[in-house]
Amino acid sequence: MSAVNLADKFAQFDEYWSPKIVSAFNGHDVMVAKFKGEFNWHSHADTDDLFLVLEGEVTIQMRDGNVTLKKGEMFVVPKGVEHCPYAEEEAHVLLIEPAGTPNTGDEATAVKKEYI
Amino acid sequence: MSAVNLADKFAQFDEYWSPKIVSAFNGHDVMVAKFKGEFNWHSHADTDDLFLVLEGEVTIQMRDGNVTLKKGEMFVVPKGVEHCPYAEEEAHVLLIEPAGTPNTGDEATAVKKEYI
Repeated sequence: MSAVNLADKFAQFDEYWSPKIVSAFNGHDVMVAKFKGEFNWHSHADTDDLFLVLEGEVTIQMRDGNVTLKKGEMFVVPKGVEHCPYAEEEAHVLLIEPAGTPNTGDEATAVKKEYI
Repeated sequence: MSAVNLADKFAQFDEYWSPKIVSAFNGHDVMVAKFKGEFNWHSHADTDDLFLVLEGEVTIQMRDGNVTLKKGEMFVVPKGVEHCPYAEEEAHVLLIEPAGTPNTGDEATAVKKEYI
């Protein structure tokens, strides 16, 4: 049992839009991800989607309006709500989703999430 | 729907060991809390307990050893594991627990968690 240093975890990978699992919590994965550019529009029918920005700025585009998150800001996309994250510059984000949730909202296109 | 600025939330209260709810996520409360001094020894039979330190330093004392968390570090206390958080100086912490979880592990002594 040891502390998870989030900055150390971000230093271990470069890929964008490829969440890495750093801890587990009540059946959820706690993940870190680097965002840059635009992801895809998607939704998760069965789960809310928690974003906490640790570095940079992220805009969560939604059909009814956007939410922009700066460092130290968080937002929960309610389940079923279509969204498309966007970051002009590289941003570092903490994500929490139930274990096995496809990051794209679709098993066919989802990245495999690995522990780091 | 808007961003939750965690620093703004911490500016809204002074009490130690009194988690404030800032968001909801899959049946869980996302909370902010100020720690200073020593809390009580307790455990949660039915839930893991997520701590992310945003300012300061926190030691999670456990019967089998301690984990010290600096700013930007997180730790999940597994369900059923006795723990007692401690902070020499004021620390700011993000907590996630199922809605209604007593912060002391005991309904009789738990603080009422309010939204801010």
